[in-house]
Amino acid sequence: MITRPKPSAKAPDTKIYERRESGVRSYSRAMPRQFNKAQGVWMHDNEGGRYLDFLSGCSSLNYGHNHPVLKQALVDYIAGDGVTHALDLHTDAKAEFLSELENVILKPRGLNYRAMFTGPTGTNAVEAAIKLARKVTGREMVVAFTNGFHGMTLGALACTGNAGKRGGAGVPLSHVSHEPFDGYYGPDVDTADLLEQRLADPSSGLDAPAAFLVETVQGEGGLNAASPEWLRKIAALAKKHGALLIVDDIQAGCGRTGGFFSFEDMGFTPDIVTLAKSLSGMGLPFALTLLRPELDVWSPGEHNGTFRGNNHAFVTATAALRTFWADPAFARDVTRRGALLERRLEDMAKRFDLSTRGRGMMRGINVGSGDVAAKITGICFKEGLIIETSGAHDEIVKVLAPLVIEDATLELGLDILENAVAETIAPVDASDSTGRQTSRKLGIAA
Amino acid sequence: MITRPKPSAKAPDTKIYERRESGVRSYSRAMPRQFNKAQGVWMHDNEGGRYLDFLSGCSSLNYGHNHPVLKQALVDYIAGDGVTHALDLHTDAKAEFLSELENVILKPRGLNYRAMFTGPTGTNAVEAAIKLARKVTGREMVVAFTNGFHGMTLGALACTGNAGKRGGAGVPLSHVSHEPFDGYYGPDVDTADLLEQRLADPSSGLDAPAAFLVETVQGEGGLNAASPEWLRKIAALAKKHGALLIVDDIQAGCGRTGGFFSFEDMGFTPDIVTLAKSLSGMGLPFALTLLRPELDVWSPGEHNGTFRGNNHAFVTATAALRTFWADPAFARDVTRRGALLERRLEDMAKRFDLSTRGRGMMRGINVGSGDVAAKITGICFKEGLIIETSGAHDEIVKVLAPLVIEDATLELGLDILENAVAETIAPVDASDSTGRQTSRKLGIAA
Amino acid sequence: MITRPKPSAKAPDTKIYERRESGVRSYSRAMPRQFNKAQGVWMHDNEGGRYLDFLSGCSSLNYGHNHPVLKQALVDYIAGDGVTHALDLHTDAKAEFLSELENVILKPRGLNYRAMFTGPTGTNAVEAAIKLARKVTGREMVVAFTNGFHGMTLGALACTGNAGKRGGAGVPLSHVSHEPFDGYYGPDVDTADLLEQRLADPSSGLDAPAAFLVETVQGEGGLNAASPEWLRKIAALAKKHGALLIVDDIQAGCGRTGGFFSFEDMGFTPDIVTLAKSLSGMGLPFALTLLRPELDVWSPGEHNGTFRGNNHAFVTATAALRTFWADPAFARDVTRRGALLERRLEDMAKRFDLSTRGRGMMRGINVGSGDVAAKITGICFKEGLIIETSGAHDEIVKVLAPLVIEDATLELGLDILENAVAETIAPVDASDSTGRQTSRKLGIAA
Amino acid sequence: MITRPKPSAKAPDTKIYERRESGVRSYSRAMPRQFNKAQGVWMHDNEGGRYLDFLSGCSSLNYGHNHPVLKQALVDYIAGDGVTHALDLHTDAKAEFLSELENVILKPRGLNYRAMFTGPTGTNAVEAAIKLARKVTGREMVVAFTNGFHGMTLGALACTGNAGKRGGAGVPLSHVSHEPFDGYYGPDVDTADLLEQRLADPSSGLDAPAAFLVETVQGEGGLNAASPEWLRKIAALAKKHGALLIVDDIQAGCGRTGGFFSFEDMGFTPDIVTLAKSLSGMGLPFALTLLRPELDVWSPGEHNGTFRGNNHAFVTATAALRTFWADPAFARDVTRRGALLERRLEDMAKRFDLSTRGRGMMRGINVGSGDVAAKITGICFKEGLIIETSGAHDEIVKVLAPLVIEDATLELGLDILENAVAETIAPVDASDSTGRQTSRKLGIAA
Repeated sequence: MITRPKPSAKAPDTKIYERRESGVRSYSRAMPRQFNKAQGVWMHDNEGGRYLDFLSGCSSLNYGHNHPVLKQALVDYIAGDGVTHALDLHTDAKAEFLSELENVILKPRGLNYRAMFTGPTGTNAVEAAIKLARKVTGREMVVAFTNGFHGMTLGALACTGNAGKRGGAGVPLSHVSHEPFDGYYGPDVDTADLLEQRLADPSSGLDAPAAFLVETVQGEGGLNAASPEWLRKIAALAKKHGALLIVDDIQAGCGRTGGFFSFEDMGFTPDIVTLAKSLSGMGLPFALTLLRPELDVWSPGEHNGTFRGNNHAFVTATAALRTFWADPAFARDVTRRGALLERRLEDMAKRFDLSTRGRGMMRGINVGSGDVAAKITGICFKEGLIIETSGAHDEIVKVLAPLVIEDATLELGLDILENAVAETIAPVDASDSTGRQTSRKLGIAA
Repeated sequence: MITRPKPSAKAPDTKIYERRESGVRSYSRAMPRQFNKAQGVWMHDNEGGRYLDFLSGCSSLNYGHNHPVLKQALVDYIAGDGVTHALDLHTDAKAEFLSELENVILKPRGLNYRAMFTGPTGTNAVEAAIKLARKVTGREMVVAFTNGFHGMTLGALACTGNAGKRGGAGVPLSHVSHEPFDGYYGPDVDTADLLEQRLADPSSGLDAPAAFLVETVQGEGGLNAASPEWLRKIAALAKKHGALLIVDDIQAGCGRTGGFFSFEDMGFTPDIVTLAKSLSGMGLPFALTLLRPELDVWSPGEHNGTFRGNNHAFVTATAALRTFWADPAFARDVTRRGALLERRLEDMAKRFDLSTRGRGMMRGINVGSGDVAAKITGICFKEGLIIETSGAHDEIVKVLAPLVIEDATLELGLDILENAVAETIAPVDASDSTGRQTSRKLGIAA
Repeated sequence: MITRPKPSAKAPDTKIYERRESGVRSYSRAMPRQFNKAQGVWMHDNEGGRYLDFLSGCSSLNYGHNHPVLKQALVDYIAGDGVTHALDLHTDAKAEFLSELENVILKPRGLNYRAMFTGPTGTNAVEAAIKLARKVTGREMVVAFTNGFHGMTLGALACTGNAGKRGGAGVPLSHVSHEPFDGYYGPDVDTADLLEQRLADPSSGLDAPAAFLVETVQGEGGLNAASPEWLRKIAALAKKHGALLIVDDIQAGCGRTGGFFSFEDMGFTPDIVTLAKSLSGMGLPFALTLLRPELDVWSPGEHNGTFRGNNHAFVTATAALRTFWADPAFARDVTRRGALLERRLEDMAKRFDLSTRGRGMMRGINVGSGDVAAKITGICFKEGLIIETSGAHDEIVKVLAPLVIEDATLELGLDILENAVAETIAPVDASDSTGRQTSRKLGIAA
Repeated sequence: MITRPKPSAKAPDTKIYERRESGVRSYSRAMPRQFNKAQGVWMHDNEGGRYLDFLSGCSSLNYGHNHPVLKQALVDYIAGDGVTHALDLHTDAKAEFLSELENVILKPRGLNYRAMFTGPTGTNAVEAAIKLARKVTGREMVVAFTNGFHGMTLGALACTGNAGKRGGAGVPLSHVSHEPFDGYYGPDVDTADLLEQRLADPSSGLDAPAAFLVETVQGEGGLNAASPEWLRKIAALAKKHGALLIVDDIQAGCGRTGGFFSFEDMGFTPDIVTLAKSLSGMGLPFALTLLRPELDVWSPGEHNGTFRGNNHAFVTATAALRTFWADPAFARDVTRRGALLERRLEDMAKRFDLSTRGRGMMRGINVGSGDVAAKITGICFKEGLIIETSGAHDEIVKVLAPLVIEDATLELGLDILENAVAETIAPVDASDSTGRQTSRKLGIAA
């Protein structure tokens, strides 16, 4: 039986943050609680509140908080004085991770990649990917896409579309052209064709690209999901023009859209793939850049990073691969649950005349403006649901529930969301509003 | 009684690395063993070998491997389902870390900084620092220094001197001027004066700088230690010319030179300080950018990163602050041990007509070339001592022993090093060589 | 009566060029003659050959070669020891030019510009324009357009679309976004709307622009003529987004499209206009950047150039303004003659199933490929007609006859062109080919 | 007999300039007269004033204004309908210029260069030079020097030291490192050695350079003359490090320092030389980039410019080569006159405790500040002497008299200058001041 969230009424003393934490902090502003424990889909604060987590560390907690198998593996490792930090020295933990990656992920998918441990953040993985693409091709320009998000260090930030993030650079962001993503100009314009025309035109001003850097579903940029057709065209374009195809699978990968990679079964193979977020399975910092062996032209140490050998993360990542990816059951379950989520969001969209976005368990609903979205997520939080927004104007309420969530709990959270939407936006059919809200409320066990 | 290292003779099967790990790996090439456990100053491989660690994760393991107090704190935290990953939400672990930072580090030193959690790698901390400096000043150019090392993402890499690392960028690295570090042109040229002349000259071509980014001791660049006088001049220059002073204390901080910060008691206060490496105390990914409150002009989320809230690291960092920095005993001990290290290296230098570098427990010996240094470290490794090189030509053999090392163990490692030098370089006084080697050898307990 | 061209059969000794002139020379390769005299629409070589000039110095000789009035003014000036070079000191010649510019050009058109003497080349004028736009707005990014050509110095080259020209830079060309020109994606896509969408989207990755830099007719880029509607939209977009509108009228201005400026009567006023090519009227180096007085924020000497005070050019430019622009007859005549040119090219296009481009006396015919175009212009040259190509693939044969050409001479040249096309491309109606060629040939007086 | 200058008291009506000329104008502010005629060393204004010209168009008028031989050649050429503008088509005028360049300049000096006609401004010549160096070497970074001035378009401006000029760019100026010029750190520091150390150090942060761009005497930067030893070292350094040596001889070339090139007889040969200013001999816009034939890797048209074929300038340049450089008399005379100038300036320096700068007929006196210099040049102008300043702070009063000036006229001008200095600065020996001033005054014929 599902118990509903119990948010705490009392906010914690935040003086230490005001005094000592930079004002750059953001999520803690809309969710002013101090958390102490977390298990599965639930977070707990230090006033006894309990919250259902539909944010999942922005998709870093696909298997939920502190998954018991992963947790046990990590505790055992630490207790046994397993190597914690080892730069890029070989360790048992690394060897096991690489073997599991090979056996559980690469081989069954017919993929042949090498793993580059880049420093344990997504932005490092992206920096390594574009450095490599530039090195391999001898070209400088990278094609990124509108609404793309790839990180906050200077190389990755140049590939990021968001003006607010870009403005933080303090220097012009160069060597990147931002091209329209799939559907950017509406359903009637094929933006891959537009790009092709400019690439083929020696007078377009678009320099020959080193790489195309693309997310199959844009996590921060509004949950825009590219169609397989468009992605195949982009892959073919890259090949035709001597550019590498980099899929940034940091948010959409690790099962979020169903498969381990978000591009599985789409009929193309990226040259380079970046992974991070849920890679460690437990939220530990870990990032990878996967690359075709022929592209592995790095000199030893040409790219490095102190924490590239985060063995704790190797341990939990290995456990996660074994637990969730050794057989296809998990992926099937995510796909099925993603369909449930889709159905619920489509219903909501119909009811309130809105539209939905996304793919798999990475979906959202466009509520028209950031203000409306903030109102909705604010109501949700008061009801004990942690949920956030996405998109150029923060106008998409996004559902990033843990992939391991029970269907009933997912429905519970979606009920809270739907009620919050109903409190904020009038439904299309006025007669309907109270009825549905009530019925839903009744469905929730106390 | 100190037992000497017992390196294993048998190298592990490395096929998985060759097949699946990028050729960018480096340390594992010179030290082809597979490690599995580590405790204190010792690392163990999976063939039963035991190694004394004079590399310490490039200064990321100042308190040794898996320090029992830190380890216990972490295991307890995990076992109790403490929040692992929380973006920048408030957590008990973060609040405790901030409080401890305030009480144990900042207040006693009369420092007033805010902490920015930047993403848990040093390069992210540097990127945040220079972004902020550019944002605050409205200027673009950053002054970095010859032989400086600041990271591998594009913004930090532009500040890094090493041509090999820079070459990996694939694009020109801009908006940075690399100025001569203290002593770069020999003892008779004050490079701060040279810099001042160019800054004061409106026709020098040196644009007004947003920041000076400096290491007090250049960890990767050859263990060059800047004098307090020079650093004070640089600090004054920055102030005079409206630039911010950023001390990159990623390698030299956290006790490596004695104090928690490497610039303590030098008579100047940086505007921004970056920390990483040993900050978590246990080698977990964690980085901070400390900034004067008046500089905290960030908009919420203007810089962010998925793993900026690595709560495991908060827990171990808090434990480390409590364990090592709550009273001055540790710092005093490091200083004393640093003097021992200095004495031994000076003796070696005298014996072999070499020169030494560095400060505190961050010292090295210049053996003239990378080839000679590689020979020496190779011999050391065969004797069970993990030790690496530094400098523009890898010509400095650097000693980065854990700060908690026993004096006798430190001497043991230095004996191994000295013997390796003696095997490689003829001593100044030929008669001396065998004698000393032998006596040293006798001093080592089996 | 019009006499036809008499090209010389004998090529000159070119050893001095091979020995001493850089291989960067281009036009002289396709037209290997050595010219010595030129008058009106005719050029003469040193073997007695005579050529009809449909290139006109790429629109630098709109009034023909050595126009007698301009020539006399210049000879008188030189003979009287008029100041030749004066940096930016005041001279009678400059004052007279400014007065004439004000009275003949600006006032009658209700325009209020200041003239900036930028150094006497088009690229200098463009550099000054974009520098000013960046200075005024505090922004760095300039929107230029596909197939745009703006010059070869680094700032202007970054705004130029052509890959061959761009490749000469040797550094990445930054701070410019090349957006699709009017009609770039075919008649059904309004590229101004596409641009508007991206400018309005804070996550598009398109930074806020300092300026839009646009040619109304793209001289080098294929004689693409923007529609007044599109230009008005672009002007409105610039205003809305705080960017300056720079019209690069270097090739299309000075009467080439009918009016003195190419944007007259279109319902918008640029913030900045660049002029060069035919500005001096006689082919002397002279360039101007016209700017709205409110934008004139330059410090004295902040942009300069040794030859910005080319007084010979002031003299001939003044004479040209007086001769051609003091009453509307000339403009009317150019417009009328442009219609004749249009008619003839449209006929040709119909006959050979081709398409035309351009506006006013700046028109061309798309013959499908650079190879075909080169064949055609080669035949023309053998017949005594100097004519060149344009476009991304050099596939447009462009007619840039002097504006002062007699109608009959224009027809003569067009006959030569049409015959050359007919020799190269089969007409749509096969029966027609010989007939027309013959009749045309008969029409030419010997 | 020398007649002294007669400046006019009445300033002209300047309303047209205020209304229609950009505020970027500079020289006309300190010299608010309107000039109309100029002959030899004299300029005349439209109020009957006559001025001795010690500015010479910043060295663009080395042979004086409107030299009769050059003037006659030009008038004849124009009168005969010689080709004025011909893009890069071959013309008699170009062939003659190339032949004369070969016979009079290159062959006697044993130099083997090709001439690239780059567009007729110095900045275009510099842009072409650095583009070529980057293209040839595949490197991006250019070493320029403190106080260097190379032009105002973006590529050349990045090589220019002056902060005021640089600030006009509105974008960061990249891909250039500004290194200390000869003597920058005083007589005891060899800046070539400093540079060598950094170039040889793979961790200095100085990227491998495409070129060194250097003036032998820095015209705008304060008339700093590099020693032959230093220049030879720089030439050797360039060679050693695979960089091209570009001598920017735009101001110091064409006889200003005695020889046609400023680097003659110094024991090294630049790879590339830029020329402009006095190249046409009459102040007409003309610039050249000379390059070693092996470096001539340009594709046809890869760099171009509408006015690269300024045939009027070819005509006067050819006449100038014939008149002044066919035998060594002129160079000898300039050298002799330069010595006279040196003597006079040294005397002045001694008398007023100042220092001198420069070489040949390109010399100045450092009067300590821009304010003092402006006072002095202001007094000079009132006395009918046109003279300007140079240097980072405009603190150098520079003498750029025409090279053809009679000794007595040179002395006359220097007397005016000395008196102006004396009015402004107290002499070292107080008793001396009136005496010398008087005697000098008596020496001037009325």
